[in-house]
Amino acid sequence: MLETKLAASVLEGNRLALARLLTQIENGSAQGREALNELFPHTGRAHLIGVTGAPGTGKSSLVNQLARHFRQKNKAHPEQSDSPEEAPRVAILAVDPSSPFTGGAILGDRVRMRDLSGDSGVFIRSMASRGSLGGLAAATSAMVQVLDAAGYEIILIETVGAGQAEVDIARLAHTTLVVEAPGLGDDIQAIKAGILEIADILVINKADRPGAELTERALKSMLQLAHPTQHEFHHHGLFESRETRAPDNPEEQNPGTAPIWIPPIHRTVATEGRGIEELVEAILRHAQHLRETGEWRRREAARMQAELDQLLRETLVRRWRSQITEEQYHQVLKELVERRVTPWQAVTALTEGER
Amino acid sequence: MLETKLAASVLEGNRLALARLLTQIENGSAQGREALNELFPHTGRAHLIGVTGAPGTGKSSLVNQLARHFRQKNKAHPEQSDSPEEAPRVAILAVDPSSPFTGGAILGDRVRMRDLSGDSGVFIRSMASRGSLGGLAAATSAMVQVLDAAGYEIILIETVGAGQAEVDIARLAHTTLVVEAPGLGDDIQAIKAGILEIADILVINKADRPGAELTERALKSMLQLAHPTQHEFHHHGLFESRETRAPDNPEEQNPGTAPIWIPPIHRTVATEGRGIEELVEAILRHAQHLRETGEWRRREAARMQAELDQLLRETLVRRWRSQITEEQYHQVLKELVERRVTPWQAVTALTEGER
Repeated sequence: MLETKLAASVLEGNRLALARLLTQIENGSAQGREALNELFPHTGRAHLIGVTGAPGTGKSSLVNQLARHFRQKNKAHPEQSDSPEEAPRVAILAVDPSSPFTGGAILGDRVRMRDLSGDSGVFIRSMASRGSLGGLAAATSAMVQVLDAAGYEIILIETVGAGQAEVDIARLAHTTLVVEAPGLGDDIQAIKAGILEIADILVINKADRPGAELTERALKSMLQLAHPTQHEFHHHGLFESRETRAPDNPEEQNPGTAPIWIPPIHRTVATEGRGIEELVEAILRHAQHLRETGEWRRREAARMQAELDQLLRETLVRRWRSQITEEQYHQVLKELVERRVTPWQAVTALTEGER
Repeated sequence: MLETKLAASVLEGNRLALARLLTQIENGSAQGREALNELFPHTGRAHLIGVTGAPGTGKSSLVNQLARHFRQKNKAHPEQSDSPEEAPRVAILAVDPSSPFTGGAILGDRVRMRDLSGDSGVFIRSMASRGSLGGLAAATSAMVQVLDAAGYEIILIETVGAGQAEVDIARLAHTTLVVEAPGLGDDIQAIKAGILEIADILVINKADRPGAELTERALKSMLQLAHPTQHEFHHHGLFESRETRAPDNPEEQNPGTAPIWIPPIHRTVATEGRGIEELVEAILRHAQHLRETGEWRRREAARMQAELDQLLRETLVRRWRSQITEEQYHQVLKELVERRVTPWQAVTALTEGER
């Protein structure tokens, strides 16, 4: 009953209830899950915008500026809004997967709070990495769903770094911004080759610094390698995705006729607010492109499939655990460590009771 | 029978058979798994050395130099070697998790081949990231086992980057080297906070460049944050590890009496071979420390538990898949995408037949 109250309070716009529920979800509590079940039918309205890039690119300032611009201008979903005069509500979820052990957040929370506090239409939350990456992506997904149900139409998901974690979290977003800055060196560019492939929009922040021209040229040549055709959404799921295979809309069945999205490169100086206006326009153009081509729906479906698969994996493990004693597990592990059984023999011994 | 022959050939030291088996394992073939089962009892002799760090730190040159030094001097396991005059055989496994989509390798394979080719006691293999990270760590683990069984006493595992992938792969190693270089900027240092915690030895390569002093000072202050006490091996497993909880050796039960390993910082110029001698000494000292404190056995056990858990997860998913049709799965997914069921209801619908 308590969780029903919590979910109801979140739907009513109670910020304290929202903060409390997000904490429950971050901690993986059963109450959080119950509340999420109730909120789920209210999700699906938000535009999820991922912002990723190496430390030092000024992502946090950029995210702040984006939030302010979305608040100042009602450009998010004018066609969906009940009152066209009202600015969209904006949530910022900052995820830091860089420290798996300490869980320490290095994101500019204080700067952020100073810039945006006092605006009741903005909700800010940061989250440090705990446990496995699968867990982090799943927790992020759940937190995004809560913010979505709570009526935040723009959700900015900020991650730091350039690895698999960012790819996993970028899967959540409709629009992914990859942020660069001049002068971070060619070495950083090299590691970004992978993450460039998930970029819908490229941002060169701190563009008043020397080397912006060089950075843009490097990005352009890398883009040509990374985007020979339109970005395809890959999901290594439990089953092949049909949603991406056979779209309902006949126009989508022939992607050659649909317009192709070429990731634009935008220069900004977030600390001075320069280039933000144009960047917001590009984000809105991308949302429109996604809707017109059916890609919005495809990305939603792929995201849900990824989440379903993750939950299925967790459930299967939990059921298996309930059928085996810790004693049995450690006996087999001991034999494995002593090399009296092979890993595959150990797995057979521990799962044969399941048949 | 064929796979038995392959395993036997690998044990006999056939390099072609070894290369072929590693390919089978990388591709996840059933034959590879069979051969691995046969080789597993022959594993457990190698000293696994992880070498990780950002691109541009000169890891590949460093790994080459380490391989050469191990080959020139028989310092690996003099007490275990049948013929004390013989140098240990050295394998290099270079893993690149930076590009999950293209699988392109950016490691210095050609440089490496030029330096070390012609030495039949050295085996070199590189591996690009395919599919999920769990898969990459599992495949790396399996390849290391094959190299171990094939008689390579020193296995250098090189990874590029600074994220969860490196942490997962570092779990495989007895000794983990984290490589830095001067002048890569404070931003890179920040992202390394997490990976520093897995370092047994820190290397400042390219130490003839300006800023080496500054880098060393930064590393020292970060080390004090990261290593308030001895490094503990964390494993988020299916069951809590007992191996790390209750050691057999009474001395280990009181870790206060065992010597604590403080990660030393070494300066090298790999391209000129400077500092390599001292670094090899530090690696051997660390191996000795691991053996004397029982930590060697604990790391082995934790590694095997991680691998067992991964195989268990895969097996549970495979069994579940055999009990459900693709039709059923996609029907439930469709209802989820249309928000007619919640994720948890979808999971229940797809797993209730398993009860």
